[in-house]
Amino acid sequence: MRVGVHKVLMNSPADVAGLERLIEAGEVAPAEIVAVIGKTEGNGGANDFTRALATLSFALALARHLGITPDAVAKRIAFVWSGGTEGVLSPHATVFTRSAAPAAASKRLAIGIAATRDLAPEEVGTMVEVRLVAEAVRRAQAEAGIADAADVHYVQVKGPLLTPAAVADADSRGARLVTRDPNGSKPYARGATALGVALALGEVAEAALGDEAIARRMDLYSSVANTSAGGELSKCEVLLFGNAEGAGGDLRIGHAVLRDVVDAEGVRAAAASAAGEPGELREPGAAIDPAGIAAIFAKAEAPPDGRLRGRRTTMLSDADIHYERHARAALGAVIASVTGDGAIFVSGGTEHQCKPGEAPIAAIVRV
Amino acid sequence: MRVGVHKVLMNSPADVAGLERLIEAGEVAPAEIVAVIGKTEGNGGANDFTRALATLSFALALARHLGITPDAVAKRIAFVWSGGTEGVLSPHATVFTRSAAPAAASKRLAIGIAATRDLAPEEVGTMVEVRLVAEAVRRAQAEAGIADAADVHYVQVKGPLLTPAAVADADSRGARLVTRDPNGSKPYARGATALGVALALGEVAEAALGDEAIARRMDLYSSVANTSAGGELSKCEVLLFGNAEGAGGDLRIGHAVLRDVVDAEGVRAAAASAAGEPGELREPGAAIDPAGIAAIFAKAEAPPDGRLRGRRTTMLSDADIHYERHARAALGAVIASVTGDGAIFVSGGTEHQCKPGEAPIAAIVRV
Amino acid sequence: MRVGVHKVLMNSPADVAGLERLIEAGEVAPAEIVAVIGKTEGNGGANDFTRALATLSFALALARHLGITPDAVAKRIAFVWSGGTEGVLSPHATVFTRSAAPAAASKRLAIGIAATRDLAPEEVGTMVEVRLVAEAVRRAQAEAGIADAADVHYVQVKGPLLTPAAVADADSRGARLVTRDPNGSKPYARGATALGVALALGEVAEAALGDEAIARRMDLYSSVANTSAGGELSKCEVLLFGNAEGAGGDLRIGHAVLRDVVDAEGVRAAAASAAGEPGELREPGAAIDPAGIAAIFAKAEAPPDGRLRGRRTTMLSDADIHYERHARAALGAVIASVTGDGAIFVSGGTEHQCKPGEAPIAAIVRV
Amino acid sequence: MRVGVHKVLMNSPADVAGLERLIEAGEVAPAEIVAVIGKTEGNGGANDFTRALATLSFALALARHLGITPDAVAKRIAFVWSGGTEGVLSPHATVFTRSAAPAAASKRLAIGIAATRDLAPEEVGTMVEVRLVAEAVRRAQAEAGIADAADVHYVQVKGPLLTPAAVADADSRGARLVTRDPNGSKPYARGATALGVALALGEVAEAALGDEAIARRMDLYSSVANTSAGGELSKCEVLLFGNAEGAGGDLRIGHAVLRDVVDAEGVRAAAASAAGEPGELREPGAAIDPAGIAAIFAKAEAPPDGRLRGRRTTMLSDADIHYERHARAALGAVIASVTGDGAIFVSGGTEHQCKPGEAPIAAIVRV
Repeated sequence: MRVGVHKVLMNSPADVAGLERLIEAGEVAPAEIVAVIGKTEGNGGANDFTRALATLSFALALARHLGITPDAVAKRIAFVWSGGTEGVLSPHATVFTRSAAPAAASKRLAIGIAATRDLAPEEVGTMVEVRLVAEAVRRAQAEAGIADAADVHYVQVKGPLLTPAAVADADSRGARLVTRDPNGSKPYARGATALGVALALGEVAEAALGDEAIARRMDLYSSVANTSAGGELSKCEVLLFGNAEGAGGDLRIGHAVLRDVVDAEGVRAAAASAAGEPGELREPGAAIDPAGIAAIFAKAEAPPDGRLRGRRTTMLSDADIHYERHARAALGAVIASVTGDGAIFVSGGTEHQCKPGEAPIAAIVRV
Repeated sequence: MRVGVHKVLMNSPADVAGLERLIEAGEVAPAEIVAVIGKTEGNGGANDFTRALATLSFALALARHLGITPDAVAKRIAFVWSGGTEGVLSPHATVFTRSAAPAAASKRLAIGIAATRDLAPEEVGTMVEVRLVAEAVRRAQAEAGIADAADVHYVQVKGPLLTPAAVADADSRGARLVTRDPNGSKPYARGATALGVALALGEVAEAALGDEAIARRMDLYSSVANTSAGGELSKCEVLLFGNAEGAGGDLRIGHAVLRDVVDAEGVRAAAASAAGEPGELREPGAAIDPAGIAAIFAKAEAPPDGRLRGRRTTMLSDADIHYERHARAALGAVIASVTGDGAIFVSGGTEHQCKPGEAPIAAIVRV
Repeated sequence: MRVGVHKVLMNSPADVAGLERLIEAGEVAPAEIVAVIGKTEGNGGANDFTRALATLSFALALARHLGITPDAVAKRIAFVWSGGTEGVLSPHATVFTRSAAPAAASKRLAIGIAATRDLAPEEVGTMVEVRLVAEAVRRAQAEAGIADAADVHYVQVKGPLLTPAAVADADSRGARLVTRDPNGSKPYARGATALGVALALGEVAEAALGDEAIARRMDLYSSVANTSAGGELSKCEVLLFGNAEGAGGDLRIGHAVLRDVVDAEGVRAAAASAAGEPGELREPGAAIDPAGIAAIFAKAEAPPDGRLRGRRTTMLSDADIHYERHARAALGAVIASVTGDGAIFVSGGTEHQCKPGEAPIAAIVRV
Repeated sequence: MRVGVHKVLMNSPADVAGLERLIEAGEVAPAEIVAVIGKTEGNGGANDFTRALATLSFALALARHLGITPDAVAKRIAFVWSGGTEGVLSPHATVFTRSAAPAAASKRLAIGIAATRDLAPEEVGTMVEVRLVAEAVRRAQAEAGIADAADVHYVQVKGPLLTPAAVADADSRGARLVTRDPNGSKPYARGATALGVALALGEVAEAALGDEAIARRMDLYSSVANTSAGGELSKCEVLLFGNAEGAGGDLRIGHAVLRDVVDAEGVRAAAASAAGEPGELREPGAAIDPAGIAAIFAKAEAPPDGRLRGRRTTMLSDADIHYERHARAALGAVIASVTGDGAIFVSGGTEHQCKPGEAPIAAIVRV
């Protein structure tokens, strides 16, 4: 089994021409596509509809190739879009395929996909969600064929937030919620799913966890989780990436921790981590080959107190541009200054994903 | 004679506490201040009033120290503010002083300041402005004591644009303007002053110039000009920085050309250019000491066709955030990734300042 | 023949639930739908993809009902979306149907639809476009069965603008364009189609027209044209609304001219114009019945010099919010203050659509 | 004693030319100025520095006339600026003077000004603040010479919010705050001062109040309070306006309640309330004379659930434009549609100022 990673540039959120060219050229077989992770050129906020347009457009195109309905495509393939291409970030989709292949001599990139059951609104942001996600992460790890949690480098999780409809539903049943504020539920939702990853991978002990820790005990975290919350789904979907014995192909994944949004060294460390063979990891800061980088996935975060390396930034006090947009613009440019490529996945919101102010970055490289 | 360079962080455009502390501590003598160049946290557009607030606040504070009126302060000291602290850019002022000092063993940072006469609206954006600026640049170079134009590394010019009032004035006299659109006059105004710098420094030949070349013949340019246009002034003010024999102190300036807004190598090259002794310039890309950098001045520009190293950016099609804000956010973060400091001067608009898509960057370092 | 007008509220640009309910309830027969005109909650700028999402979503839904492809739906039904629901404007679609019905005793609402041939880039914004649109307007008027141009109250036209691709195509053929700036082509494109309406309806004489008049001779205009330009189409589509002898149903249309974006009297005048029987038009300002208003279509425009009734507005100098957004927010609220309904069609850009600063408004009422 | 009301248009937040003209013309005596209430063209958010620039510019200008320092001017005259001139709102200042004059035959406009002592951070948003404001309101009412609370029509209050510095101060003393979130403290701060007004004027009973009611028991409110919270002050300043026996001049004030931001009838009711002699109030909806309106002060609010008269608005879900900006744009245009004047005071945030979704409006008219 081998994982294919295909970057498709997009001229608009509805642009599937790049995908069609890959299919026509025989580089991607529609039936082998398992996931799509991409950036769209919306504002990244509650009224960003570019994600929906991209999903609908990709689903329509693939429905024609697969002979199924667009709805069936969206059930079969995991779509993760992050809105907001600030600075030099370039709208694109990374298409992941899985196909039969002989095992390589050493560990290679593998993907596992799993989902939880539907969550009730009162479970969102609670230990119930943490445990359900942990269980899904374990299944995804098993599906990927990764024996050692240390070989897991990137876990993308999408989960539900509390929509006004969910709040109303809970009210009608007298159920108690972590918050009644839809936007305010995002930290809980992103945080609980990140802690689920941390629990499954042994990054935190179950004894340290509890409802009251979620979105509060920021010393508990995963260094490989990358989570988001949306109103369009009611279960959690897990996309787990790591290196597995027995996997084929020529790709490997690694990760590092970004100290802040200008941490170019962290970008290099992620690439070096991916490139290094087990037991002989190149030291961080080693020269990297930008051309060998197939994809990068990172989180951008404003400094908790607005100060970056002692200098005040205006991200948190800007009423015109949301701080996540400032943070993505900065980190995207710094990554591109290292790799030369603005078509990278950078999203915002890092509750329980590294220490406050820090953020995870994963790189897939050709070996 | 030595030039002092003092970076003052600001908690708001009206914040003069940092300046007051420098004065109280005896590090800056108010009477020795010749110029202030800084960034304020506005939107950088026509309705950005943070620049006016900063000038008014600094003038009021210095008026108390100097025993003169705020208006007299604004006439005596050159204020250059650029609005827009996107990404990690940090609001600050760099205060320049000039004081008596013995000559150093080799060339050191020197400043020259000069101004043109008031321009009539019909002269803005024309060869008249080019020649007037060139003449002021030559006077500033002489004042700085710089014999060789190759020792000039950064020329900041502020000039007038065509306000609605200026257009009305020209109309009443039947005078012909390069454009009647106030916003549309910026490229002409910035371009003409940049060509004035290029002419004075021998970067372009006078024979190649003409009214029809301004804002059109983009193969003609200065590599050290950094120009802006505003409605608040009617003459052009020139701040020229270079290294002079006979100057004292421990500062030197250098410059480089940024290939684009993610050109980290260009940032390093500017610092290396400043640090290198004449005749033994370190090669670009050499390790630099971030702590030794006193100040950086750069221009940020969107790629002419919106594509950065082959990847589409959305800077030019974004109706919510102006492309200059995207470009400043990107370049500011890349510079800070090299130097660790977000308190840097990054502004937009590069007509005749390097080739299209490229931009100048100057660094002042301690030697 | 009768025209049905069905307002459908939308919870997002992808929301077709309201449409589905109308179909299920038997109020709308999918096969009778001829046009959809609506507002979506994007920014109304070049990167507003909510219009594309709405068209795709409606086309998908109707494709299922009609047993044809989404592409075929988009060819069969005219979709006109305007992005930007500032202030109290409410996202919605107005669905127009045409069905057999006996003639009413007096004139009733009728629709005519027509399109020009594809335009070459070099024809956009020229007299060729003016004449082609005029010819399409005459065909639409004939199809609607409206004998007298005075009975035409609202002509919506969508036409092409000059995309970068169109500019490149013209360049390759050596063809000359009215402008090479895509955004700058909008005034020419909107202006030429508006003059086409004016020519067809006798509002301007052909002798007064010429290439040089387009987007310049602002004393030439139509009082009933409402035009837009987009990069997604290469021909002009005309939707003409008026009152016709022989038409059935209980709807009538009328129009008025808005003096500016706070002209509540103009809103009342449009409703009164629609309600009045021929020969006995109520006088402007007469009390109107908000509940009887089926739909309103208006253009919003900033005052040419930024001054509204002598007071400076900041619409034109605001670098954060585009002036069209300010203008739509203002006019939308004023219309809703008269009718109590924010689900109205208000769009921007009024070249040759009423005098500069003025704008057309049409109302459909139940009689 | 008579109150003078002078509207000064402003071409920028630093523009004092209009004020200077009034002074030169002898219409305003600088020594008689007691308050300035105005709108500036910022974004109305945390990074809106146009208010500070306007205060600094007015203080500098008046310092020259009064022969005192700018700081002394700011202590002597109450400045209230609201940022945000969306839609047709026009930047301006309304200058209030108080001068000797014989009593008119009936009640006339009077102003009372008072301030509380400085509040400790732990008192902000609590009953301590409510009672301190109530006491200041009673003093202001007495100073204005208004015997009956029913004659009070508009009470503007500015109070402190919890800045990061205030939070740190409380932490160092172990003091407990209503919230530790600076932005989150605004509803408490605005709410407590509004309840202080309500308590003083008998609109709510003291027994109904308590710490837990502030920003929660929205059935408790004042119909004449208009409150704001800022980080620049530590006490509450009260500007109270009403009609007093014994006052002179030709101005009267009245108020009404806006049902929502498109309530044109509420605007008319406020003007009619002001114009009506006691005991013979014209009925709401009566024709008003726009030319007789000297000033209008209103609050704009988004509908609590985002729905205006049953139609969804997108104010609350818009990530590009803050909902207060949408609300101000809408209400400002509706008021201008009634009065023809965009130079009106419209600000946001209505906790305990009328019922949720409703908002107060006051009008000063010439009788």
